[in-house]
Amino acid sequence: MNQPAGKPHQLTEVSVLGLGAMGSVLASTLLDAGRSVTVWNRTPGRAPELAARGARVVDSVRAAVTASPVVVACLLDHSSVQATLGPVADALRGRTLVNVTTTTPNESRALASWAADHGIDHLDGAIMAVPAMIGSGTGQIFYSGSRAAYDRLQPTFDLWAASEFHGADAGRAALVDLAMLSGMYQMFTGFFHGAAMVAAMGMSAPEFAARQAPFLAAMTQELAAYAKVIEGGDYTVPGQQSLHFSDLSHLVQASAEEGVDPAPIAAVQTLISREIAAGRGEEGLARVYEGLRAGGAA
Amino acid sequence: MNQPAGKPHQLTEVSVLGLGAMGSVLASTLLDAGRSVTVWNRTPGRAPELAARGARVVDSVRAAVTASPVVVACLLDHSSVQATLGPVADALRGRTLVNVTTTTPNESRALASWAADHGIDHLDGAIMAVPAMIGSGTGQIFYSGSRAAYDRLQPTFDLWAASEFHGADAGRAALVDLAMLSGMYQMFTGFFHGAAMVAAMGMSAPEFAARQAPFLAAMTQELAAYAKVIEGGDYTVPGQQSLHFSDLSHLVQASAEEGVDPAPIAAVQTLISREIAAGRGEEGLARVYEGLRAGGAA
Repeated sequence: MNQPAGKPHQLTEVSVLGLGAMGSVLASTLLDAGRSVTVWNRTPGRAPELAARGARVVDSVRAAVTASPVVVACLLDHSSVQATLGPVADALRGRTLVNVTTTTPNESRALASWAADHGIDHLDGAIMAVPAMIGSGTGQIFYSGSRAAYDRLQPTFDLWAASEFHGADAGRAALVDLAMLSGMYQMFTGFFHGAAMVAAMGMSAPEFAARQAPFLAAMTQELAAYAKVIEGGDYTVPGQQSLHFSDLSHLVQASAEEGVDPAPIAAVQTLISREIAAGRGEEGLARVYEGLRAGGAA
Repeated sequence: MNQPAGKPHQLTEVSVLGLGAMGSVLASTLLDAGRSVTVWNRTPGRAPELAARGARVVDSVRAAVTASPVVVACLLDHSSVQATLGPVADALRGRTLVNVTTTTPNESRALASWAADHGIDHLDGAIMAVPAMIGSGTGQIFYSGSRAAYDRLQPTFDLWAASEFHGADAGRAALVDLAMLSGMYQMFTGFFHGAAMVAAMGMSAPEFAARQAPFLAAMTQELAAYAKVIEGGDYTVPGQQSLHFSDLSHLVQASAEEGVDPAPIAAVQTLISREIAAGRGEEGLARVYEGLRAGGAA
């Protein structure tokens, strides 16, 4: 690979801690790009496969950390990050730590604070992709924390997925990631619920998916209109479907009558009912946003 | 309009009961197509506008029913359908009743049974569209009940939206409609929840919608894979994201920590936790479908 002048860090050596499904593919994508990669895992795990492809396998966290200027942690959770990195804080000093372990925003902030105390340049990464998407040109990874580290490492990050920097508050990458996933999990659950309802009349799940997927994809176009109402803060503007109209009583009742647990859609109904009870039944559906944002106080 | 031989019912006269936003647009779409339309509403409402466009306005339900061989009811709810049609059962005998009022499947079945008792040909219609979509070539209307009535009236129905017949059980149109809407409302609620989470870090709702809409649209492609797992009934097949992996604890915790009501995503977590507690944590996310279908017994 030609190395353009002024981008010396495109060939940064990287150590990867944690060789689960995601850590392994992060390491192998770097190997595919001709990078020098050192890997460590608590157990041998996938290390032999990566060794066969040119990775240097070490048997201690300290050896991994001291091998490269950039250390990527892809571990089980925040506790394992603390347990793994705590004893090698001195070795991490002056290096860049990129933690892509799934954590909450506050856990990312706690690690950022610990890193600052130990002179470690820190970035948090939140991966919007399954392992199979890494290096495939799909998926996205959000980063927050050290802007300098992000700018320096973006060419490396782009080998994995499209990268996006979300600011110096280390918690922001995780927050955007989790917010994006909330819609996804609720959409999937809605599909499971709808599929269970039509199963009662003998429609198969694939037959339902063939209808539901294009319908939901089309309905994502409504989000911009809802966002505009939220941005304006006036939920009485004309042209909206009112909360009264969307009280979901037919849906909850039909689910129960067909023997299907209405719990996930009943949770949505509770949010709507709370607004109606507060006298806002003529306002639009997006008013639910305000109730959620207020922490549940309608 | 040229009338092809053998399709004499394309010009069927229609009476529309109920001139709310939806009933009015159903009537005006028929007028646009050159049909003879009689309309009735409890109050004058939009009747003068429709009269100006050629509708015959009558002031009694009986006059409306006796004016046409096909009577479309687009009323507030099942109770108003019963109250409106009960006294004119004799006048409806031998005519076709198309009830597009939003009802539960069991309410549609109850009306079908009443119609059968009174010699009325009955179809239930479930409208997958907002009024603005009627006659625009978007949207869909599901029908169930009398197959003969459906076949006869499909050319009329197609003036409103793409039509689809779902079987002789009158409740099926409403059931498919409500099942489809469950995913939509849960997806919208997920968006409101995610938008509230990122608002805590200063990201605007339109900025979030610009990310969330294409992401969710892309994720609808996963529904076919989930449906295939559901169809197979084996939630241990490889390649799935496990329930343990999707336990949503980070998401629920982060929502609470950012001051955003986690209720809608906590409802999803409850379904997942129930499966994990039953020892199925290594199975795939689609296992949630079985718990819902079992009525909540995990």
